[in-house]
Order: sequence, then C-alpha cells, then structure tokens
Amino acid sequence: MAYIRTFGEIPGHPEGTTYEDREALRLAGLHAHKQNGISGTPAEGADAIVLNGGYPDDRDEGDTIIYTGQGGQDSRGRQIADQELTSGNAGLVKSQIDGLPVRVIRGYEEKSEHAPAAGYRYDGLYRVVRHWFKERDDGFRVLQFRLEKIYDTEIVRDFGQDTGDLESRPADNLAPTTRTEQTVNRLNRRASVVRNIKKWHNNICQICRMTIELPSGPASEVAHIQGLGEPHNGPDCEENALCLCPNDHLRFDHGALYLTDDLKVVDTKTQQVIGKLNTHPKHVIDLRYVRQHRSYWIK
Amino acid sequence: MAYIRTFGEIPGHPEGTTYEDREALRLAGLHAHKQNGISGTPAEGADAIVLNGGYPDDRDEGDTIIYTGQGGQDSRGRQIADQELTSGNAGLVKSQIDGLPVRVIRGYEEKSEHAPAAGYRYDGLYRVVRHWFKERDDGFRVLQFRLEKIYDTEIVRDFGQDTGDLESRPADNLAPTTRTEQTVNRLNRRASVVRNIKKWHNNICQICRMTIELPSGPASEVAHIQGLGEPHNGPDCEENALCLCPNDHLRFDHGALYLTDDLKVVDTKTQQVIGKLNTHPKHVIDLRYVRQHRSYWIK
Repeated sequence: MAYIRTFGEIPGHPEGTTYEDREALRLAGLHAHKQNGISGTPAEGADAIVLNGGYPDDRDEGDTIIYTGQGGQDSRGRQIADQELTSGNAGLVKSQIDGLPVRVIRGYEEKSEHAPAAGYRYDGLYRVVRHWFKERDDGFRVLQFRLEKIYDTEIVRDFGQDTGDLESRPADNLAPTTRTEQTVNRLNRRASVVRNIKKWHNNICQICRMTIELPSGPASEVAHIQGLGEPHNGPDCEENALCLCPNDHLRFDHGALYLTDDLKVVDTKTQQVIGKLNTHPKHVIDLRYVRQHRSYWIK
Repeated sequence: MAYIRTFGEIPGHPEGTTYEDREALRLAGLHAHKQNGISGTPAEGADAIVLNGGYPDDRDEGDTIIYTGQGGQDSRGRQIADQELTSGNAGLVKSQIDGLPVRVIRGYEEKSEHAPAAGYRYDGLYRVVRHWFKERDDGFRVLQFRLEKIYDTEIVRDFGQDTGDLESRPADNLAPTTRTEQTVNRLNRRASVVRNIKKWHNNICQICRMTIELPSGPASEVAHIQGLGEPHNGPDCEENALCLCPNDHLRFDHGALYLTDDLKVVDTKTQQVIGKLNTHPKHVIDLRYVRQHRSYWIK
C-alpha cells in the first residue's frame, strides 16, 4: 500500500494509541518507513519521527525533545560518518520553516521514562523549533533538532496532495481561517538590546549593507549570534546580537553564513568569504558567541 | 519634569489605576503628551496610547482594539486632511516591528462600554499586530492599528536609555533570558497552500526573483495578499498568496510595495513600477485580493 504523507492527526489514530511494530505504523499512515527514524523528504517536509533509542545524543523530556537526525551509521548502528542536511534531515528543516506539525512516535527501545513498555506509541504533534550540528566525542557530526509539543485543541489536518486544481479542492477552501488558543512560552527579549543595535547600525544590515525602507521608516531585525533559549542559551545582550535584514537573518540562523574571528562573512556551502561584517565602535561583538554559532554549522 | 519613555508596566501604577487628567498621566510616566493620542516617536517606538472618543473609526472590544492614528484634524476635531505615517503613527509601527508593549489608557469621553465613568484609566499592555490605511466616507484617509491585549504574567520593564555602555548596564544583563507563558490565538494556516505556492515557484521570490539558499535547500515565505485574520479576513487559499523572500514579504505586508491589476510591482513611496510579478500558469491570483491590499496603502 502506498504511503500518503499527511501532516497532523490521522483520524482513528488518536494520541496514545500503540502499535505492534513499524509496519503497523506505516499501514496506519503514521510513518512512511520501516527503518528510518524520519518520515519525510526535503521537498515535502517531515510528517513523523520515531524515537527508539538509536542515538545516545537524543534527550527526551516529554514536552521537549532533542532529536538526533539520521545517517552516518553502519548496519550495526555505529557512527562511521558525519550526518548531512539531506533526505529526512532536510525534511525536518522544511517542517521547521513551514511550521508543519510532526507526529512523534516513541518505541520500546528508547531509554527514557517516556518510552512505552512494548511496541510503538503515537504521542502527539510537535513543532520543530531549531536545528544545529553537534560534534560528538568520537569526532563525528550529527544533526540535532529541538521539538516542542503542540497543545492546540484543533490542528488542521492537511493532505500532501496538490490542491491547486480548483475543482478538486475541498468545499471549505474559502472558509474563514480558524484560530486555536494555544499556550506558548514566549522569550522575553530585552527591548533595550533591540533599540541599541538598530540605533547604532541605523537599520543597515551588517552583512549586505541594505536597509528595508518601509513607509514608516527604515527597518531591520536584531539577530542573536548564539541563539536564545534552550538548548543554546545565548545571552540577550548587545555583544551577542547583530543588525540584519530578514533575508540575512534567515541565512545566519540556518547556518548558510557564519563569521570568522576577524568578522569576515563566509558562505558555508562554498566556504568563500563573501564580505566583512559592518561594525560600529559602540557595538562590541563577543567572539565566544561567534565561535559557538560557528560550531553549529562547520567542523 | 522631563518625560522618560518607558516600555511596559510602570511600578506603582498597576492596571486599573485611574487618573484625574492628562497631566496626571504624564507625571506618572504613563504617557508623554497632554493632547496627542499617541506617546511615541518613529525612532523610539510608541509606549502608550489614549482612547478618548476622538475618532469615530475606533473600535474597542476590550481585549482587541482598532485604534485610529493621529493627525489631519482641525482644532475642533474635524478631519480636514489625510493622516500620514510619521510622528506617533510611525512610532506605533516601530512598536509593531520591534514587539514593544503599548500601555492602553481609556478616557471618560470614549464611547464604549469599556470606558471609565470619569478621568483616565490605565488598562494594561497591548501589542500592535497590524496597521493599514482606511478611506473614510468623507474621503480622508486615516491610519488604523489593531492592538491585542498581552496576558503575560511578567513583562520585562525596559527603560528608553542607552544601555550600550557596559559599566552602566544592570547587573542582570547576562542573566538567562526568561520565558513567560502566554495564551495566544494562532491562525491555522493551510499547509497545502504553503506547499503548492512554494512548489510552483520553486522558492523563487515573485518580486525579486531571488531564492534564499539554505544548507537544507532553497527557502521562501508564503505571504497573503489580503491579510489573514481580523479585521482583513483574507482567505487562506492559493489565489490570495504569493511566494516571496522574507525582505519582500516585510515590504509587501507594510505597503512599501503594492500590485497593479496587471501585476506590476509599484514602489509606494516613489510610485515607480519596479518590476512585474513573476507568475506560474497554475497559480491564479485573484485581483479582488490585490485591490484590497492596495486599498490599505494608496488612495
């Protein structure tokens, strides 16, 4: 039976349901594969993951999960190569970017108090909020993803098919967009950091030197070099912040760009220096944060 | 006494406190002006507004407010000119962009069940979530802002002074960033719309033709032409969506750019055509939404 990739809840398969084996998960439409941890592709996104003790780097705290990506292991589960941002791993990043819900399934082999005693249990929907590379003690680099549980009372279920053909779309396509109440943890960002950074740089992007001109005036974003919040826990201070345009903010947060110790900007893919960070005498950048950011993206 | 612009709660002045007149509000540090509705500047942002019945276009539903900007009235409160995105109005947009909390103060002249019987009452913190121009029946254009109440249990209080001088910063500057639990209404966006739009356009921005190349693959954002949610209530469908880079998404949402009926892209400030929207045969754009977006930004 072909697997139809569906994002969100699967009718008839509520949270807490258990399954005997991976094939049962696949037949239920919960997860595409019998082996891979990640059900997903770079173009479609990832709809589900299985936690089953395959990676010692996983950390399962129930509502939040640090999940290790796939790849680089031999048939006996030993790490023999670096992981790469392709295949299911890139699918999880796609889900992060597009805000797609990911079904989390825990297996009996997971070493955590949250694992089921036997079989596989569907444990609800999570969002991917962040990803980065981690260098392990054995020298191999693995991808890590932070997932946070979604407590929406209602999640729109949305099939993977092309609904662009107007005739074939569901009749409710033009219905008003619904809202669901959700409790979130909002990071309290310091307004003075945002204000100082934007003032010093006059809303000019430190990477591309461009300002977004809006009818209300020039605009920019304040990016943190070492990310705020778990698990990076960078500080919310000027020494850990950059003034960027939204495009370079996205590139920097996803490691498409990184900084050298002399604040040159490097394209991660080509390893070419593409420029030098614009600086301001009052804006002292702490290289500890620059190095921490870099460690997430290059060896 | 000089007014020190402070964002967030003012100690000793909790929500629900009432004040005899505008001068008392100013002395309490709640609002800078004795006349203007908006306390703020384009560079610093707006820290407070007063609702006092000055504009028939205001709509006060308690937790959500449609607030009309300032300017364009004669001394008797008659509208004699269009409002502009300058001064306090641009300050409210700055607060929207930077996520700064705005103190809402209601006056006795406000025509709503939420107004106090006498004097002025501080009614808590709100966020600016959207702004647009509205053409009134008399032909004049006024700015409107949608504000939503913040129910954080703790809001970081943050003074307007420059804290870039390391010695003068508060000792907790490098303390871990705190989080507060907050209940939010999240719009349920249709994943299939995002997927179709990005697939058709291959993540290429329909305005600048650029793709954001990330290590996980190409990236883009899906923008709605007529905004989702209150009060615009645009539908979440492909005919109301564009594939944009984050920079052009920000420009489009703030009306720095708009579309003509033949899908030319116009710079709102200069009124110059800067290009033509990239199209895809499967992606039919409904001109009703294009016109609605345009009506928010030009006459």
